[in-house]
Amino acid sequence: MAEEAKKLAAYAAVDNHVQNNQVVGVGSGSTIVYAVDRLADRVRQEKLNIICVPTSFQARQLILQHGLTLSDLDRHPELDVAIDGADEVDDDLTLIKGGGGCLTQEKIVAGCAKHFVVIADFRKDSKALGEQWKKGIPIEVIPMAYVPVNLRMAVSKAGPVVTDNSNFILDWKFEQAQNWKEVNTAIKMIPGVVETGLFVGMAERAYFGMEDGSVKTRNTTPKSPPY
Amino acid sequence: MAEEAKKLAAYAAVDNHVQNNQVVGVGSGSTIVYAVDRLADRVRQEKLNIICVPTSFQARQLILQHGLTLSDLDRHPELDVAIDGADEVDDDLTLIKGGGGCLTQEKIVAGCAKHFVVIADFRKDSKALGEQWKKGIPIEVIPMAYVPVNLRMAVSKAGPVVTDNSNFILDWKFEQAQNWKEVNTAIKMIPGVVETGLFVGMAERAYFGMEDGSVKTRNTTPKSPPY
Repeated sequence: MAEEAKKLAAYAAVDNHVQNNQVVGVGSGSTIVYAVDRLADRVRQEKLNIICVPTSFQARQLILQHGLTLSDLDRHPELDVAIDGADEVDDDLTLIKGGGGCLTQEKIVAGCAKHFVVIADFRKDSKALGEQWKKGIPIEVIPMAYVPVNLRMAVSKAGPVVTDNSNFILDWKFEQAQNWKEVNTAIKMIPGVVETGLFVGMAERAYFGMEDGSVKTRNTTPKSPPY
Repeated sequence: MAEEAKKLAAYAAVDNHVQNNQVVGVGSGSTIVYAVDRLADRVRQEKLNIICVPTSFQARQLILQHGLTLSDLDRHPELDVAIDGADEVDDDLTLIKGGGGCLTQEKIVAGCAKHFVVIADFRKDSKALGEQWKKGIPIEVIPMAYVPVNLRMAVSKAGPVVTDNSNFILDWKFEQAQNWKEVNTAIKMIPGVVETGLFVGMAERAYFGMEDGSVKTRNTTPKSPPY
Protein backbone atom coordinates (compact mmCIF):
# COMPACT_ATOMS: atom_id res chain seq x y z
CA MET A 1 0.00 0.00 0.00
CA ALA A 2 2.71 2.46 1.00
CA GLU A 3 4.85 1.22 -1.88
CA GLU A 4 2.08 1.86 -4.40
CA ALA A 5 1.58 5.33 -2.86
CA LYS A 6 5.28 6.14 -3.16
CA LYS A 7 5.18 5.13 -6.80
CA LEU A 8 2.13 7.31 -7.53
CA ALA A 9 3.77 10.37 -5.99
CA ALA A 10 7.09 9.78 -7.72
CA TYR A 11 5.54 9.27 -11.16
CA ALA A 12 3.39 12.39 -10.84
CA ALA A 13 6.36 14.55 -9.86
CA VAL A 14 8.59 13.29 -12.65
CA ASP A 15 5.79 13.66 -15.21
CA ASN A 16 4.87 17.21 -14.12
CA HIS A 17 8.28 18.71 -13.41
CA VAL A 18 10.86 17.18 -15.72
CA GLN A 19 11.31 18.47 -19.25
CA ASN A 20 13.87 17.99 -21.98
CA ASN A 21 17.34 19.56 -21.54
CA GLN A 22 17.12 19.86 -17.79
CA VAL A 23 19.54 19.27 -14.95
CA VAL A 24 17.70 17.28 -12.26
CA GLY A 25 18.65 16.79 -8.62
CA VAL A 26 17.99 13.23 -7.50
CA GLY A 27 17.17 12.76 -3.83
CA SER A 28 17.67 9.78 -1.52
CA GLY A 29 15.45 7.21 0.09
CA SER A 30 12.89 4.58 -0.81
CA THR A 31 10.48 6.84 -2.72
CA ILE A 32 13.22 8.16 -4.99
CA VAL A 33 13.73 4.67 -6.40
CA TYR A 34 10.39 5.03 -8.20
CA ALA A 35 11.26 8.52 -9.42
CA VAL A 36 14.46 7.29 -11.02
CA ASP A 37 12.56 4.38 -12.60
CA ARG A 38 10.11 6.79 -14.14
CA LEU A 39 12.83 9.25 -15.18
CA ALA A 40 14.72 6.45 -16.95
CA ASP A 41 11.53 5.35 -18.74
CA ARG A 42 10.83 8.86 -19.94
CA VAL A 43 14.41 9.48 -21.03
CA ARG A 44 14.30 6.28 -23.10
CA GLN A 45 10.82 6.71 -24.56
CA GLU A 46 10.92 10.46 -25.19
CA LYS A 47 14.64 10.58 -26.00
CA LEU A 48 15.16 13.30 -23.38
CA ASN A 49 18.48 14.94 -22.67
CA ILE A 50 18.60 14.92 -18.85
CA ILE A 51 21.57 15.36 -16.55
CA CYS A 52 21.29 14.02 -13.00
CA VAL A 53 22.99 15.33 -9.84
CA PRO A 54 22.80 12.92 -6.89
CA THR A 55 22.30 13.74 -3.18
CA SER A 56 23.91 10.58 -1.84
CA PHE A 57 25.85 7.47 -2.68
CA GLN A 58 22.52 5.67 -3.06
CA ALA A 59 21.25 8.27 -5.56
CA ARG A 60 24.51 8.05 -7.50
CA GLN A 61 24.16 4.28 -7.78
CA LEU A 62 20.52 4.55 -8.89
CA ILE A 63 21.49 7.04 -11.61
CA LEU A 64 24.27 4.79 -12.88
CA GLN A 65 22.23 1.58 -12.69
CA HIS A 66 19.51 3.18 -14.82
CA GLY A 67 22.01 4.38 -17.43
CA LEU A 68 21.21 8.04 -16.75
CA THR A 69 23.78 10.83 -17.19
CA LEU A 70 25.60 11.51 -13.93
CA SER A 71 27.00 14.92 -13.04
CA ASP A 72 27.76 16.95 -9.91
CA LEU A 73 27.51 20.48 -8.52
CA ASP A 74 31.03 21.35 -9.70
CA ARG A 75 29.88 21.00 -13.29
CA HIS A 76 26.22 21.92 -12.74
CA PRO A 77 25.88 24.22 -9.72
CA GLU A 78 22.41 25.34 -10.86
CA LEU A 79 19.68 22.73 -11.23
CA ASP A 80 16.35 23.14 -12.96
CA VAL A 81 14.52 20.95 -10.49
CA ALA A 82 15.31 18.70 -7.55
CA ILE A 83 13.04 15.86 -6.47
CA ASP A 84 13.41 14.28 -3.07
CA GLY A 85 11.51 12.39 -0.40
CA ALA A 86 10.86 13.49 3.17
CA ASP A 87 10.24 11.92 6.55
CA GLU A 88 7.41 14.34 7.23
CA VAL A 89 5.77 17.28 5.44
CA ASP A 90 3.63 19.84 7.26
CA ASP A 91 0.94 22.20 6.07
CA ASP A 92 3.48 24.91 5.13
CA LEU A 93 5.71 22.44 3.28
CA THR A 94 8.26 22.54 6.06
CA LEU A 95 10.01 19.18 5.95
CA ILE A 96 11.84 16.87 8.27
CA LYS A 97 14.44 15.01 6.26
CA GLY A 98 17.53 13.02 6.91
CA GLY A 99 16.32 9.87 8.57
CA GLY A 100 18.69 8.22 6.09
CA GLY A 101 21.64 10.37 7.14
CA CYS A 102 22.08 12.35 3.88
CA LEU A 103 20.45 15.58 5.01
CA THR A 104 23.40 17.87 4.29
CA GLN A 105 23.86 16.76 0.68
CA GLU A 106 20.09 16.80 0.21
CA LYS A 107 19.85 20.38 1.45
CA ILE A 108 22.82 21.49 -0.66
CA VAL A 109 21.26 20.05 -3.81
CA ALA A 110 17.78 21.39 -3.00
CA GLY A 111 19.34 24.80 -2.36
CA CYS A 112 20.86 24.79 -5.87
CA ALA A 113 17.55 23.99 -7.59
CA LYS A 114 15.21 26.54 -9.13
CA HIS A 115 12.33 24.30 -8.09
CA PHE A 116 12.31 21.76 -5.28
CA VAL A 117 9.56 19.14 -5.28
CA VAL A 118 8.86 16.60 -2.55
CA ILE A 119 7.39 13.15 -3.02
CA ALA A 120 6.02 10.96 -0.27
CA ASP A 121 3.34 8.51 0.68
CA PHE A 122 0.31 9.43 2.80
CA ARG A 123 2.08 8.49 6.03
CA LYS A 124 4.39 11.51 5.74
CA ASP A 125 1.53 14.00 5.33
CA SER A 126 1.01 16.03 8.52
CA LYS A 127 -0.73 19.17 9.65
CA ALA A 128 2.16 19.85 12.03
CA LEU A 129 5.62 18.30 12.30
CA GLY A 130 5.81 15.58 14.92
CA GLU A 131 2.31 14.23 14.26
CA GLN A 132 3.64 11.35 12.20
CA TRP A 133 7.41 11.38 12.61
CA LYS A 134 8.42 10.61 16.18
CA LYS A 135 12.20 10.34 15.91
CA GLY A 136 12.80 14.08 16.03
CA ILE A 137 14.90 16.29 13.80
CA PRO A 138 18.20 14.81 12.65
CA ILE A 139 21.18 17.12 13.08
CA GLU A 140 24.56 16.52 11.46
CA VAL A 141 27.41 17.34 13.84
CA ILE A 142 31.20 17.42 13.60
CA PRO A 143 32.32 14.41 15.69
CA MET A 144 34.37 16.45 18.19
CA ALA A 145 31.25 18.54 18.97
CA TYR A 146 28.94 15.59 19.47
CA VAL A 147 28.94 15.64 23.28
CA PRO A 148 28.74 19.45 23.71
CA VAL A 149 25.91 19.73 21.14
CA ASN A 150 24.11 16.83 22.84
CA LEU A 151 24.36 18.70 26.12
CA ARG A 152 23.22 21.99 24.61
CA MET A 153 20.22 20.40 22.87
CA ALA A 154 19.42 18.08 25.79
CA VAL A 155 19.51 15.07 23.51
CA SER A 156 19.52 11.66 25.11
CA LYS A 157 22.67 10.10 23.76
CA ALA A 158 22.50 7.21 21.35
CA GLY A 159 25.19 5.54 19.32
CA PRO A 160 26.25 7.89 16.54
CA VAL A 161 25.21 7.29 12.95
CA VAL A 162 28.06 8.21 10.61
CA THR A 163 27.18 10.26 7.52
CA ASP A 164 28.79 10.29 4.07
CA ASN A 165 30.74 13.33 5.35
CA SER A 166 32.15 11.27 8.26
CA ASN A 167 30.10 13.32 10.71
CA PHE A 168 27.60 12.15 13.32
CA ILE A 169 23.81 12.42 13.37
CA LEU A 170 21.85 13.15 16.51
CA ASP A 171 18.06 13.32 16.76
CA TRP A 172 16.53 16.30 18.52
CA LYS A 173 13.09 15.58 19.98
CA PHE A 174 10.66 18.48 20.22
CA GLU A 175 7.42 18.86 22.12
CA GLN A 176 5.19 20.85 19.78
CA ALA A 177 5.04 22.93 16.62
CA GLN A 178 7.35 25.91 16.71
CA ASN A 179 8.60 28.71 14.52
CA TRP A 180 10.64 26.32 12.40
CA LYS A 181 12.63 29.01 10.63
CA GLU A 182 13.88 30.31 13.98
CA VAL A 183 14.50 26.81 15.32
CA ASN A 184 16.46 25.90 12.20
CA THR A 185 18.63 29.01 12.48
CA ALA A 186 19.20 28.56 16.20
CA ILE A 187 20.33 24.97 15.76
CA LYS A 188 22.55 25.59 12.75
CA MET A 189 24.30 28.49 14.50
CA ILE A 190 25.61 26.19 17.25
CA PRO A 191 29.33 25.67 16.60
CA GLY A 192 29.86 22.13 15.35
CA VAL A 193 26.44 21.78 13.76
CA VAL A 194 26.90 21.19 10.03
CA GLU A 195 23.26 21.07 9.01
CA THR A 196 19.77 20.32 10.26
CA GLY A 197 17.09 18.09 8.78
CA LEU A 198 14.57 20.95 8.89
CA PHE A 199 13.84 22.24 5.39
CA VAL A 200 12.03 25.55 5.79
CA GLY A 201 10.82 27.54 2.81
CA MET A 202 12.57 25.28 0.31
CA ALA A 203 9.94 22.92 -1.09
CA GLU A 204 7.38 24.54 -3.33
CA ARG A 205 5.20 21.54 -4.09
CA ALA A 206 4.58 18.17 -2.47
CA TYR A 207 3.03 15.09 -4.05
CA PHE A 208 1.51 12.54 -1.71
CA GLY A 209 0.45 9.13 -2.93
CA MET A 210 -2.80 8.35 -1.09
CA GLU A 211 -4.33 5.12 0.17
CA ASP A 212 -7.18 5.33 -2.34
CA GLY A 213 -4.77 5.44 -5.29
CA SER A 214 -5.07 9.19 -5.85
CA VAL A 215 -2.31 11.78 -5.71
CA LYS A 216 -2.71 14.79 -3.46
CA THR A 217 -0.63 17.90 -4.08
CA ARG A 218 0.22 20.79 -1.82
CA ASN A 219 1.76 24.09 -2.91
CA THR A 220 3.28 26.91 -0.97
CA THR A 221 3.04 30.05 -3.01
CA PRO A 222 1.74 30.55 -6.54
CA LYS A 223 5.37 30.89 -7.72
CA SER A 224 5.39 27.24 -8.69
CA PRO A 225 2.84 26.18 -11.26
CA PRO A 226 3.73 23.01 -13.12
CA TYR A 227 5.76 24.35 -16.01
CA MET B 1 59.22 42.52 17.22
CA ALA B 2 55.98 40.74 16.40
CA GLU B 3 57.35 37.61 18.08
CA GLU B 4 58.08 39.47 21.30
CA ALA B 5 54.60 41.03 21.12
CA LYS B 6 52.96 37.61 20.71
CA LYS B 7 54.87 36.37 23.75
CA LEU B 8 53.79 39.34 25.88
CA ALA B 9 50.13 38.83 25.02
CA ALA B 10 50.28 35.06 25.56
CA TYR B 11 52.00 35.32 28.93
CA ALA B 12 49.57 37.98 30.18
CA ALA B 13 46.54 35.87 29.22
CA VAL B 14 47.87 32.68 30.79
CA ASP B 15 48.89 34.53 33.96
CA ASN B 16 45.55 36.34 34.34
CA HIS B 17 43.10 33.65 33.29
CA VAL B 18 44.45 30.23 34.24
CA GLN B 19 44.01 28.91 37.76
CA ASN B 20 44.50 25.58 39.45
CA ASN B 21 42.04 22.75 38.65
CA GLN B 22 40.85 24.21 35.37
CA VAL B 23 40.07 22.77 31.97
CA VAL B 24 41.72 25.01 29.38
CA GLY B 25 41.00 25.21 25.64
CA VAL B 26 44.20 25.57 23.65
CA GLY B 27 43.94 27.46 20.36
CA SER B 28 45.98 27.23 17.18
CA GLY B 29 48.56 29.36 15.46
CA SER B 30 51.89 31.02 16.10
CA THR B 31 50.88 33.03 19.19
CA ILE B 32 49.52 29.98 20.97
CA VAL B 33 53.01 28.45 21.02
CA TYR B 34 53.97 31.04 23.63
CA ALA B 35 50.81 30.44 25.63
CA VAL B 36 51.54 26.72 25.88
CA ASP B 37 55.14 27.50 26.87
CA ARG B 38 53.91 29.69 29.69
CA LEU B 39 51.19 27.25 30.72
CA ALA B 40 53.74 24.44 30.95
CA ASP B 41 56.06 26.64 33.04
CA ARG B 42 53.28 27.51 35.44
CA VAL B 43 52.04 23.92 35.73
CA ARG B 44 55.58 22.82 36.60
CA GLN B 45 56.45 25.66 38.95
CA GLU B 46 53.10 26.01 40.72
CA LYS B 47 52.23 22.29 40.52
CA LEU B 48 48.90 23.12 38.90
CA ASN B 49 46.34 20.53 37.92
CA ILE B 50 45.36 21.64 34.41
CA ILE B 51 43.59 19.70 31.68
CA CYS B 52 44.02 20.86 28.08
CA VAL B 53 41.56 20.53 25.18
CA PRO B 54 43.10 21.23 21.76
CA THR B 55 41.52 23.04 18.78
CA SER B 56 43.71 21.44 16.11
CA PHE B 57 46.33 18.84 15.40
CA GLN B 58 48.98 21.51 16.02
CA ALA B 59 47.50 22.32 19.45
CA ARG B 60 47.36 18.64 20.32
CA GLN B 61 51.04 18.24 19.46
CA LEU B 62 51.99 21.30 21.51
CA ILE B 63 50.12 19.95 24.52
CA LEU B 64 51.81 16.56 24.25
CA GLN B 65 55.29 17.99 23.58
CA HIS B 66 55.05 20.10 26.73
CA GLY B 67 53.95 17.15 28.86
CA LEU B 68 50.57 18.72 29.62
CA THR B 69 47.42 16.67 30.24
CA LEU B 70 45.48 16.13 27.02
CA SER B 71 41.73 15.71 26.94
CA ASP B 72 38.83 16.34 24.53
CA LEU B 73 35.26 17.61 24.46
CA ASP B 74 33.84 14.10 24.91
CA ARG B 75 35.38 13.95 28.38
CA HIS B 76 35.34 17.71 29.10
CA PRO B 77 32.50 19.36 27.17
CA GLU B 78 32.63 22.42 29.46
CA LEU B 79 35.85 24.41 29.66
CA ASP B 80 36.78 27.03 32.23
CA VAL B 81 38.65 29.16 29.75
CA ALA B 82 39.81 28.99 26.13
CA ILE B 83 42.78 30.96 24.84
CA ASP B 84 43.28 31.44 21.12
CA GLY B 85 44.85 33.75 18.58
CA ALA B 86 43.09 35.71 15.83
CA ASP B 87 43.87 37.10 12.41
CA GLU B 88 42.15 40.36 13.29
CA VAL B 89 40.28 41.80 16.29
CA ASP B 90 37.98 44.82 15.99
CA ASP B 91 36.77 47.35 18.54
CA ASP B 92 33.83 45.14 19.58
CA LEU B 93 36.03 42.04 19.92
CA THR B 94 34.58 40.57 16.76
CA LEU B 95 37.29 38.34 15.34
CA ILE B 96 38.38 36.99 12.02
CA LYS B 97 39.96 33.60 12.61
CA GLY B 98 40.85 30.59 10.57
CA GLY B 99 43.68 31.75 8.35
CA GLY B 100 45.24 28.47 9.48
CA GLY B 101 42.21 26.40 8.46
CA CYS B 102 41.08 25.29 11.95
CA LEU B 103 38.20 27.71 12.37
CA THR B 104 35.50 25.11 13.01
CA GLN B 105 37.34 23.34 15.80
CA GLU B 106 38.38 26.71 17.22
CA LYS B 107 34.78 27.93 17.29
CA ILE B 108 33.53 24.67 18.81
CA VAL B 109 36.08 24.88 21.63
CA ALA B 110 35.51 28.61 22.21
CA GLY B 111 31.76 27.93 22.32
CA CYS B 112 32.28 25.38 25.11
CA ALA B 113 34.31 27.78 27.28
CA LYS B 114 32.93 29.89 30.11
CA HIS B 115 35.50 32.54 29.19
CA PHE B 116 37.14 33.03 25.83
CA VAL B 117 40.30 35.15 25.69
CA VAL B 118 42.15 36.25 22.57
CA ILE B 119 45.87 36.87 22.27
CA ALA B 120 47.56 38.67 19.40
CA ASP B 121 50.31 41.06 18.45
CA PHE B 122 49.67 44.72 17.60
CA ARG B 123 49.27 43.96 13.89
CA LYS B 124 45.93 42.21 14.53
CA ASP B 125 44.47 45.18 16.44
CA SER B 126 41.89 47.03 14.30
CA LYS B 127 39.11 49.54 14.71
CA ALA B 128 37.14 47.73 12.01
CA LEU B 129 37.63 44.33 10.40
CA GLY B 130 39.45 44.53 7.08
CA GLU B 131 41.78 47.35 8.16
CA GLN B 132 44.66 44.96 8.77
CA TRP B 133 43.54 41.59 7.44
CA LYS B 134 43.09 41.66 3.67
CA LYS B 135 42.44 38.01 2.87
CA GLY B 136 38.76 38.12 3.79
CA ILE B 137 36.74 35.82 5.99
CA PRO B 138 37.55 32.12 5.72
CA ILE B 139 34.52 29.87 5.31
CA GLU B 140 34.60 26.11 5.73
CA VAL B 141 32.50 24.36 3.10
CA ILE B 142 31.52 20.75 2.36
CA PRO B 143 33.51 19.87 -0.80
CA MET B 144 30.45 19.12 -2.95
CA ALA B 145 29.09 22.61 -2.19
CA TYR B 146 32.32 24.44 -3.01
CA VAL B 147 31.28 25.66 -6.45
CA PRO B 148 27.68 26.64 -5.58
CA VAL B 149 28.81 28.49 -2.43
CA ASN B 150 31.53 30.23 -4.45
CA LEU B 151 28.86 31.37 -6.90
CA ARG B 152 26.50 32.50 -4.18
CA MET B 153 29.20 34.48 -2.35
CA ALA B 154 30.81 35.77 -5.56
CA VAL B 155 34.19 34.44 -4.46
CA SER B 156 36.95 34.36 -7.00
CA LYS B 157 37.92 30.72 -7.10
CA ALA B 158 41.26 29.61 -5.77
CA GLY B 159 42.64 26.16 -5.16
CA PRO B 160 40.92 24.68 -2.13
CA VAL B 161 42.67 24.40 1.22
CA VAL B 162 41.66 21.16 2.94
CA THR B 163 40.78 21.33 6.63
CA ASP B 164 41.22 18.74 9.39
CA ASN B 165 37.56 17.85 8.69
CA SER B 166 38.36 17.12 5.01
CA ASN B 167 36.36 20.15 3.97
CA PHE B 168 37.43 23.12 1.84
CA ILE B 169 38.14 26.72 2.86
CA LEU B 170 37.17 29.68 0.72
CA ASP B 171 37.93 33.32 1.53
CA TRP B 172 35.10 35.82 1.25
CA LYS B 173 36.29 39.37 0.59
CA PHE B 174 34.14 42.20 1.93
CA GLU B 175 34.15 45.89 1.15
CA GLN B 176 33.46 47.55 4.49
CA ALA B 177 32.38 47.04 8.06
CA GLN B 178 28.98 45.42 8.34
CA ASN B 179 26.60 44.02 10.92
CA TRP B 180 28.83 41.04 11.56
CA LYS B 181 26.25 39.09 13.53
CA GLU B 182 23.88 39.20 10.57
CA VAL B 183 26.64 38.46 8.07
CA ASN B 184 27.78 35.48 10.11
CA THR B 185 24.24 34.08 10.31
CA ALA B 186 23.57 34.66 6.61
CA ILE B 187 26.74 32.85 5.59
CA LYS B 188 26.35 29.94 7.96
CA MET B 189 22.76 29.34 6.84
CA ILE B 190 23.85 28.63 3.26
CA PRO B 191 23.55 24.87 2.75
CA GLY B 192 27.02 23.36 2.62
CA VAL B 193 28.64 25.98 4.84
CA VAL B 194 30.03 24.25 7.93
CA GLU B 195 31.33 27.30 9.76
CA THR B 196 32.62 30.83 9.26
CA GLY B 197 35.76 32.48 10.58
CA LEU B 198 33.72 35.33 12.05
CA PHE B 199 33.59 35.10 15.84
CA VAL B 200 30.87 37.49 16.99
CA GLY B 201 30.10 38.00 20.67
CA MET B 202 32.37 35.17 21.77
CA ALA B 203 35.60 36.77 22.97
CA GLU B 204 35.31 38.73 26.20
CA ARG B 205 38.87 40.02 26.49
CA ALA B 206 41.76 40.53 24.10
CA TYR B 207 45.43 40.93 24.96
CA PHE B 208 47.61 42.68 22.40
CA GLY B 209 51.37 42.71 22.69
CA MET B 210 52.45 46.19 21.59
CA GLU B 211 55.55 47.48 19.81
CA ASP B 212 56.71 49.36 22.91
CA GLY B 213 56.74 46.20 25.02
CA SER B 214 53.47 46.92 26.80
CA VAL B 215 50.30 44.83 26.79
CA LYS B 216 47.02 46.42 25.78
CA THR B 217 43.76 44.83 26.83
CA ARG B 218 40.26 45.24 25.45
CA ASN B 219 37.08 44.03 27.10
CA THR B 220 33.58 43.70 25.85
CA THR B 221 31.19 43.77 28.76
CA PRO B 222 31.94 43.91 32.49
CA LYS B 223 31.03 40.21 32.74
CA SER B 224 34.69 39.31 32.44
CA PRO B 225 37.00 40.68 35.06
CA PRO B 226 40.17 38.68 35.56
CA TYR B 227 39.03 36.12 38.09
